[in-house]
Amino acid sequence: MGTVVVLAAQVGGAKLADGLYRLRGMDLAVVVNTGDDYRHLGLAFSPDLDTTLFTLAGIASATAGWEPEGETRALQGMLKRLGGPDRPLLGDKSLAAPLLRAEGLANERRLTEITLDFCRRLGIEALVLPMSDDPVRTNVLTDDGAMTFQQYYNELGCDPAVRGLQYAGAAEARISDEVLDALHAEDLEAVVIGPANPYHGIRPILELNGMRELLRKRGAPVVAVTPVVGGKALQGSAGKMMRELGREPTALGAATEYRSLADGFVIDREDLAFAEGVRSLGMRVLAVQTVMRTIDDRVALARSVLEFARSIREARALEVE
Amino acid sequence: MGTVVVLAAQVGGAKLADGLYRLRGMDLAVVVNTGDDYRHLGLAFSPDLDTTLFTLAGIASATAGWEPEGETRALQGMLKRLGGPDRPLLGDKSLAAPLLRAEGLANERRLTEITLDFCRRLGIEALVLPMSDDPVRTNVLTDDGAMTFQQYYNELGCDPAVRGLQYAGAAEARISDEVLDALHAEDLEAVVIGPANPYHGIRPILELNGMRELLRKRGAPVVAVTPVVGGKALQGSAGKMMRELGREPTALGAATEYRSLADGFVIDREDLAFAEGVRSLGMRVLAVQTVMRTIDDRVALARSVLEFARSIREARALEVE
Repeated sequence: MGTVVVLAAQVGGAKLADGLYRLRGMDLAVVVNTGDDYRHLGLAFSPDLDTTLFTLAGIASATAGWEPEGETRALQGMLKRLGGPDRPLLGDKSLAAPLLRAEGLANERRLTEITLDFCRRLGIEALVLPMSDDPVRTNVLTDDGAMTFQQYYNELGCDPAVRGLQYAGAAEARISDEVLDALHAEDLEAVVIGPANPYHGIRPILELNGMRELLRKRGAPVVAVTPVVGGKALQGSAGKMMRELGREPTALGAATEYRSLADGFVIDREDLAFAEGVRSLGMRVLAVQTVMRTIDDRVALARSVLEFARSIREARALEVE
Repeated sequence: MGTVVVLAAQVGGAKLADGLYRLRGMDLAVVVNTGDDYRHLGLAFSPDLDTTLFTLAGIASATAGWEPEGETRALQGMLKRLGGPDRPLLGDKSLAAPLLRAEGLANERRLTEITLDFCRRLGIEALVLPMSDDPVRTNVLTDDGAMTFQQYYNELGCDPAVRGLQYAGAAEARISDEVLDALHAEDLEAVVIGPANPYHGIRPILELNGMRELLRKRGAPVVAVTPVVGGKALQGSAGKMMRELGREPTALGAATEYRSLADGFVIDREDLAFAEGVRSLGMRVLAVQTVMRTIDDRVALARSVLEFARSIREARALEVE
């Protein structure tokens, strides 16, 4: 068994990362999207990092995976009373990380150091790594104009039709040393792309200067998991965004986003009809249950993904012979 | 009836301000100490301003008057879990004002504007005014060295012996236009000094450039209320501080701090023995119940204080004739 790297965003990505963590412990590095990070009231919000941390620490809410279990909104009530903004809705517990993160950044600490410190405090043995210490901001180009993903999501409730996305800063952002180390691990076994919105969840990571080239060059199997099942995005806004961008809102549409990058694509059993289409994109296909309702579901999917990656390695070895 | 100005700090000052507010409504200006303000985790804490706001809005805790009723500590728990500081203990609701205040200050708004905005939002008709928009920091000189009041109070629990105090910035700080307007009101009826620690509660206000001269020049009666009853400070650290500074920890000791400034001094009925001593400092004396356990107590004390001020004005008029 070697090192596994998973690219993660949103609740789906965090859940699969958790499944992998339960199988591999410290031999896992989770590279997390920071393109949706934003500043609000001076605090430094990193939604995907916090979702991942809460999930791997086992303290995420079962029903609202992006916040801790038993979240309360006492601060939000007083904030409103004092004339503060209604949105984004702030949770009391959820505010701790953005508060400490802003303080750390103000003291010239790197986002990676701050995040690894949170990992240690939460008892997480895997490495949870921001994709970069440099700022990347995903901008959504809509019929109402260009805006940050945060504005699109929190202020406008994903309402305006999306015409494109832009990853400001990605071309200049440096992949952090910690992410480079993980991807250069001699025993790198697989790179997994978690089930998350391809446009604002995973793409910002892939747009980092040199990331696609590095993944191709390393040669470990790259396996992506569909964020769409039966024509529905499992979490959030992927389906709507795909339609508006002129893509088919299906597992096949999602697979298209990883063409020429992923060696294998995992679709749901329900979507067997798309298997042939995905194969025609040049990817191997695995069909399993991808919906993760329980912890066991996470572990089962993680195990399937790793076995799929191994089968791809073995098939390649045969081809070479 | 004219305009009343009360200098306030801590819970005692806020309670008397509330009594005056219930009698006078919008004809009251509360000038609040900001010498204990501090920055923590990037937020702008103004303990005395928030205590006053919560109290006048009728939402302060009955048992912990410096925070809102029904305060919770969900954020503090998560902060600790993530390796954040233990102290000062942060309340969920209590964090809203420091968060919005830091944001307002970062956007170049004056502390006074921000505070008046909070007043409007909370439905407070009186003016709650920071003593200045310029920073003043009360430093406590102790056997363990010089420190901010915040460090002395929150981090060291008022433990080190106090040898002196210093009001950094006070001599240069400008009394705000709003405070000047209140003190220059043509119908100024009385200036009340609330029951608060004379050293770090009231003195920072009096140390502002020109404040003592202005109070003397205006000629409206200045009436101070004792923060010490029966040898005990009603709130906080006044008694200990007085002893360590070589003052008698009594109503007489407290009165000494306002010599040549206050025309009248209100002591508790329990402390009638000190009446003659206070008179010998050149102040008139009123002895009433000063402990404010109920809202009625606040109003009764406020009424007594205003009647006392009127009697001083009338006595002066007789002296002139």
